[in-house]
Amino acid sequence: MDPQVLGMKVGLIGAGRIGQIHGRNLAVQLPGVRLAMVADIDLRAAQSLADQYGVRQVTTDYRELLSTPDLAAVAICSATDTHASIIQEAAKAGKHIFCEKPIDFDLARIDLALSAVQAAGVSLQIGFNRRFDPNFRRVRELVGEGQIGEPHLLRITSRDPEPPPPEYIKFSGGIFLDMTIHDFDMARFLIRSEVEELYAAGGVRVDPEIGRLGDLDTAVIMLKFENGVIGTIDNSRTAVYGYDQRVEIFGSKGMVSTENETPDRHTLSDQEGVHGPLPMHFFLERYQASYLEEMRSFVECVRTDKQPEASGMDGRIPVVMGLAARKSYEQNRPVRLSEITV
Amino acid sequence: MDPQVLGMKVGLIGAGRIGQIHGRNLAVQLPGVRLAMVADIDLRAAQSLADQYGVRQVTTDYRELLSTPDLAAVAICSATDTHASIIQEAAKAGKHIFCEKPIDFDLARIDLALSAVQAAGVSLQIGFNRRFDPNFRRVRELVGEGQIGEPHLLRITSRDPEPPPPEYIKFSGGIFLDMTIHDFDMARFLIRSEVEELYAAGGVRVDPEIGRLGDLDTAVIMLKFENGVIGTIDNSRTAVYGYDQRVEIFGSKGMVSTENETPDRHTLSDQEGVHGPLPMHFFLERYQASYLEEMRSFVECVRTDKQPEASGMDGRIPVVMGLAARKSYEQNRPVRLSEITV
Amino acid sequence: MDPQVLGMKVGLIGAGRIGQIHGRNLAVQLPGVRLAMVADIDLRAAQSLADQYGVRQVTTDYRELLSTPDLAAVAICSATDTHASIIQEAAKAGKHIFCEKPIDFDLARIDLALSAVQAAGVSLQIGFNRRFDPNFRRVRELVGEGQIGEPHLLRITSRDPEPPPPEYIKFSGGIFLDMTIHDFDMARFLIRSEVEELYAAGGVRVDPEIGRLGDLDTAVIMLKFENGVIGTIDNSRTAVYGYDQRVEIFGSKGMVSTENETPDRHTLSDQEGVHGPLPMHFFLERYQASYLEEMRSFVECVRTDKQPEASGMDGRIPVVMGLAARKSYEQNRPVRLSEITV
Amino acid sequence: MDPQVLGMKVGLIGAGRIGQIHGRNLAVQLPGVRLAMVADIDLRAAQSLADQYGVRQVTTDYRELLSTPDLAAVAICSATDTHASIIQEAAKAGKHIFCEKPIDFDLARIDLALSAVQAAGVSLQIGFNRRFDPNFRRVRELVGEGQIGEPHLLRITSRDPEPPPPEYIKFSGGIFLDMTIHDFDMARFLIRSEVEELYAAGGVRVDPEIGRLGDLDTAVIMLKFENGVIGTIDNSRTAVYGYDQRVEIFGSKGMVSTENETPDRHTLSDQEGVHGPLPMHFFLERYQASYLEEMRSFVECVRTDKQPEASGMDGRIPVVMGLAARKSYEQNRPVRLSEITV
Repeated sequence: MDPQVLGMKVGLIGAGRIGQIHGRNLAVQLPGVRLAMVADIDLRAAQSLADQYGVRQVTTDYRELLSTPDLAAVAICSATDTHASIIQEAAKAGKHIFCEKPIDFDLARIDLALSAVQAAGVSLQIGFNRRFDPNFRRVRELVGEGQIGEPHLLRITSRDPEPPPPEYIKFSGGIFLDMTIHDFDMARFLIRSEVEELYAAGGVRVDPEIGRLGDLDTAVIMLKFENGVIGTIDNSRTAVYGYDQRVEIFGSKGMVSTENETPDRHTLSDQEGVHGPLPMHFFLERYQASYLEEMRSFVECVRTDKQPEASGMDGRIPVVMGLAARKSYEQNRPVRLSEITV
Repeated sequence: MDPQVLGMKVGLIGAGRIGQIHGRNLAVQLPGVRLAMVADIDLRAAQSLADQYGVRQVTTDYRELLSTPDLAAVAICSATDTHASIIQEAAKAGKHIFCEKPIDFDLARIDLALSAVQAAGVSLQIGFNRRFDPNFRRVRELVGEGQIGEPHLLRITSRDPEPPPPEYIKFSGGIFLDMTIHDFDMARFLIRSEVEELYAAGGVRVDPEIGRLGDLDTAVIMLKFENGVIGTIDNSRTAVYGYDQRVEIFGSKGMVSTENETPDRHTLSDQEGVHGPLPMHFFLERYQASYLEEMRSFVECVRTDKQPEASGMDGRIPVVMGLAARKSYEQNRPVRLSEITV
Repeated sequence: MDPQVLGMKVGLIGAGRIGQIHGRNLAVQLPGVRLAMVADIDLRAAQSLADQYGVRQVTTDYRELLSTPDLAAVAICSATDTHASIIQEAAKAGKHIFCEKPIDFDLARIDLALSAVQAAGVSLQIGFNRRFDPNFRRVRELVGEGQIGEPHLLRITSRDPEPPPPEYIKFSGGIFLDMTIHDFDMARFLIRSEVEELYAAGGVRVDPEIGRLGDLDTAVIMLKFENGVIGTIDNSRTAVYGYDQRVEIFGSKGMVSTENETPDRHTLSDQEGVHGPLPMHFFLERYQASYLEEMRSFVECVRTDKQPEASGMDGRIPVVMGLAARKSYEQNRPVRLSEITV
Repeated sequence: MDPQVLGMKVGLIGAGRIGQIHGRNLAVQLPGVRLAMVADIDLRAAQSLADQYGVRQVTTDYRELLSTPDLAAVAICSATDTHASIIQEAAKAGKHIFCEKPIDFDLARIDLALSAVQAAGVSLQIGFNRRFDPNFRRVRELVGEGQIGEPHLLRITSRDPEPPPPEYIKFSGGIFLDMTIHDFDMARFLIRSEVEELYAAGGVRVDPEIGRLGDLDTAVIMLKFENGVIGTIDNSRTAVYGYDQRVEIFGSKGMVSTENETPDRHTLSDQEGVHGPLPMHFFLERYQASYLEEMRSFVECVRTDKQPEASGMDGRIPVVMGLAARKSYEQNRPVRLSEITV
C-alpha cells in the first residue's frame, strides 16, 4: 500500500450543498482520512467550510489543489459542466477521483474523461450514493443470493417532495438526465444486466413553468433488460407526502421490496384513522448514511486498490439511458440504447 | 353416527342479538344443518327470526322446544341468569348444548349445570367464539408447534369501542365477569396452562355513570400461570379508534403477535401523514367468521362425538378468574384462584 | 316496482366453478332472492348444484330456462364463446342479465349483444367483480373525494399464484384478454377516464409451454389516459407467494394504495426475521366477498331500475384494450385505442 | 453567556464502552465542543481514546481532571459505585455534570450527591438517553399535545437480545435497578405524572445462572400513577429476535405506539411467507442517535443555563421505583413508593 494513503489527505473541489456533505464526511467521519484542502470559485464558501473543520489550505483555483502533491484523492463537487474537464486534469495529476453525478450530458466529453482516467491508472468513483443505501444494498444482496430466483419484473418509485427552482431546471439536462438518472443507475445496480431498449412517457402535471422551460415533471419509463427483466420507473417532481423512494423486484421464487424510511415509527390511532409518519423529507435526510458510506467505500477502494462500486462506465451508461429516454419521449416509440452514439 | 344427526335439526333458545347470529348460521350457513325451531319469551322476536329462514316451529316456552323429539341440539342464547337452569333441563332432555358465555356468575349453579351435562352424556360447548378467530387460532398453533419455544410472557389487549348502556352494566356482573371473561378464556386457550394467581387494578376513566353503578371501565390484570408464564390483560370500555383485539406471546425462541383486522387495507399518504383504516368497529364485524366457525365446530363435535373445543370446564374457569379479579381489585392484593370456592 | 321482482327469481346458466359461486350467492346469501332454475349442458353438474340448495328446476337447455316466465333475471356463467349469443336471446326474452367477463373476444359479436340489450331495455351487468372488492372501492372513493387531488400516476399489480392448465390457455384469448382484462377494467374504474393509447411488453418467463401455445406469461402494459394519467399494469402467471393484487394511485395532493389481504394478521419474530402470512391464495378466497357484493348490487339494480356499475360498455372497452395490447406487443409500438375497430 | 463555554471544553471520566460513545460525540460530533481531557484508572484505555481524537490531556486520576480549570463540564462514565462521590467532587469543583445512570443504588448517597449539585449551582444531567430517541420524544409530544386525550393505559416493552455476563449481573443491582430502571424513567417521561404504587412479578426463564446469582431475567411490573394511569412494563434478558423497545399509550381520544427500528425496511415474500428485517440488535445500534442528542442537549443546557431534561431528581426516582419493585417481588404485594425511604 502507498504510505501516502495511510493517513489519506483528500482535497475537495466545490463547497456547495453536496460539497459540504462530502467535506464533513471527509473531515470528521472517516478514521484515517483528512480533508486537507478546499477549492471553490467562491472564496468565502471555501473558507467557511474549511474553518468548520480546521482545514488550513483554501483556494479559488482547483488547479492549485490538483497540483498539491500530498493529496491522494479529490472529490469533485463543482458544477456539472466542469466535471469532465476536472476529471481529466485530476487524472493527469495522478489523483484518485470521486466525482458527483452526472459526469456530463455529452458522451464525447464523458469518453475523454474516462480515457484520461484509464490512461492515468487512477480510481474514479461516480456519486451514485443510493447504491450505498442499506435498503437497496439489501435488495441487491437478496437478489444476488437467489432469494427470489430469476428476476422477472422491476419497479422503481422515485418521487421528489418538491421541484428544484426554475433556474436549476434550465441547466439540469431535463428530468431524464437530472432525476431519472439515479433510477437508471439503480435499475442496473439491482438487476445486474444491461437495458437494451426503453420507452418513456411523461407530462407536465406539477408546474406549468417546468413545461415552459421545455421539461417534464412527471414521467414513466419502461425498461427491457438483456436478461429478460421488464422494469418500470415512475417519477414525479412533487410528492406532497415527502421523498418517495422504493423498489420492488419480482422473480420466479418470490419478491423483494422496500418501504420508505421515516423519522420515527410511531402510529397514532384516533377516531379518524390510524396515522403514521411521513417519509424523510428529501435526499439530505434520506440518504445521509449513504453519502458517508459511499465516501468510506471510495477511500477503501483507493487504499486497497480495488475497483470502485460505481465506476466511470457506471457513470456513462445512465447518461445514455437518459438520452434514449428523451428520444423515446420525443418520438413516442421504444428506443434501443444502441441508437445512442457519440 | 346417529342417523338423527345426519341432517341435524337444531333449536334456538333466545332470538336477541346473538341469537340472530347463531340462528342465521344454523339456518343457511352450515350444510346438513337445519334450524328447526325458535323459542323466545317475546313471540314476535321468535317469529321474525323464524320467518326470515322459513322455520315453521316457534314458541315462547323453551320447555316446549326441549321436548321436541327430533331436535338433536339446542343453542342457548337467552339471558345469562337462565343459562344454568336451561342447560340442566336440556341435558335431561338429551339434547346436545351450545350455550352462550357466561354459564352463570355463581359457581354452585355452574357446577349443577355441568353435573347434569355429565350425567346425561351430552355435549356442551360454551360460546367463547374468539377461540375460532383465525388470528388467535394461528397464534395458538404456532405456540403449540414450538415456534416461539417456551412461552414466557403473554399480553392481551381487549378494548371495546363503546360501553354498553347503563341498564346492561347493572346486570353484567361487572367488567371482570362481563368483558375480561373473554380474555381470561383467551389466556388459557393460548398458553395451555392454568392461572394460579392474579392481580387486578382498575379505574373509572371513561364514564362516571359506570362508576356510580359500582363497576369499572378500565382494568389491567396480571396473571401468573402454573407453567411460569406471566400475562397481562388490559381492558377499556371505550377505544375511540374501534375494537382493539390483539395478543402477543413472547418465548424463549421468539414472539408471535396479531394486529387488528380492518375493513380494507388501504393507505392514504398526504401532506399530514400516512393514514390507514380503523379496526373493524365491534364484535359483530370483527368476529363474524368466528361465530360461524364455532357453530360449525359444535355441529362437527356432535356429529363425530368429539369433545367441544370450549368445554363446560372452559366455561367455569374464567368465572373463577373473574371472581378472583374482583376480589383482588377490592382488596388490592394478588389473589390465588384456589381462594375462590363454591 | 315490478311485483315480479319483490321475491326475485333468478336462473343460472352454467354450473361450473364460477357458476357455483354465483349459484350459492343467489340461493342463500341474498334476502328476497331465489335461485329458481339451473341450466348446464352437463345435467349432473346442474342437478348437483340444484340439489345443494333445494332448487327444483333443472335443464340442459338454457333456452328452456330463458322461456321460463317467472324468472326476472339470469346469470350467464357458461363458456365465453356462448356469452354473446345467450345475452342476445336473454334480452329478447326480457330477462335482466348478469354475464361473466369477457362478453366475447370479437367486437362485432359484442356489439350485437349490446344492441339486443338496449333494444330490449333490460339491465346488463358484466362480472367485473373486483370493482366490488372493499379495497378498490375505498381507493376509488378516496380518489373521487379528491383526497389525492388530481391523479397523475396509476399502478396495478396483478399476479396469479399459478398458471391455468394448457388446455385453458389455448382458448383463453391470450394473457391480455384473459388476465389483464380485469386490470384494464380496474384502471378505468379507478381513474374514471378513458385510455387513449397503450404500450405492451411481455415475455415467457414462467412456463415454456405457455410460449409454445403462442401466449405470454409475464407482461407490463403502460396506459395513457385522456386526463393525463399515466398507468402501468404488471402481470405474471406465477407469483409463488400467492395472489398479488394491489393498486396505487399518485396525485397532486397525495397517494393512495392497497396491500394484499391475508388469512390472518399474525407476525412471528424469531432469530431469522419477522415473518407474516402470505396473501390469500387465489381469487376464490381473495374475492369471495366481492362476488356476493356484485350480485347483491345487480339484484339491487334490477329492483330499483338503476344502471349496473359494470355496464355492457364497461364490458366492451377492456376487450378493445386487450386487442390493442396484443397489437402493441406484436408490433412493439404504442397503439391508440382508436386503431381497434370492428 | 460565559465566554468559557463558547468553545466548551469537556472532560471525560471513564473510557469504557459507554465512555467511548460519549467521548466520540464530544470530540467530533458537536460543533463548538471539545473533548479536552480523558481520565480512566486504566491509562491505556484513556490514552487510546485520547489518541483517536487528538486529545492531549490524559490522566489516571479523575481528581486531576476535576481540578483542570478550563474544563466547563465533565461526563462521568466510570463504574456505578463511583458516580455519587465523583458528582459531589465535580460539583464542588464547579463543573457542570453529565452522569451515566444510575446515580447510585443507595438513596442516602444519591441525596448527598444531589445536595452538592444544588449547593454548587451547577447543572446535572443523568444519562437516560432513551428520552432523546426520536420515537419516544414523538410519543411524548403527541401525548402532550392532547392527541390521545387523557392517558389511561401505558405499556412498555423492553427486552434485551442477550443477558450480560454473570460478573456483570453480580454488581448490577438486580434486574429492576439495572434494566427496568430505564423503563421506570420512560414511564415518568411519557406520562408526566408520578407513580404511587407498583406491583412486580418475575422469574428465571432465560438462564438458571442468573437465578443462582439471586437475580431475575424476566419481569412484569404494574404501575399506578397519581393521575390514574395504569402501566405495565415487561422485561426479558433474552429476546432472540433482537432488542425489543416499544411503548404504547392509550387514552380517552386515541392511542399512540411505536414499533422497533430496523436496519432497513425490506420485505421478502416467498413460498414460506412474508419476511422482514429484525430490530436493530442492541442499544449501541438502536440508541446511537439518542446518545448524540442527549449530549447535544446537555451542552445546550450548560450554554443557555437551562435545566437539563433528565435532572438529578429524575435520576433518583427510578432508583426508588427499582427498590420498590424488588420489595414488591420479594413480598408479593403492591408496594407504595412512599414506603421506600432513606
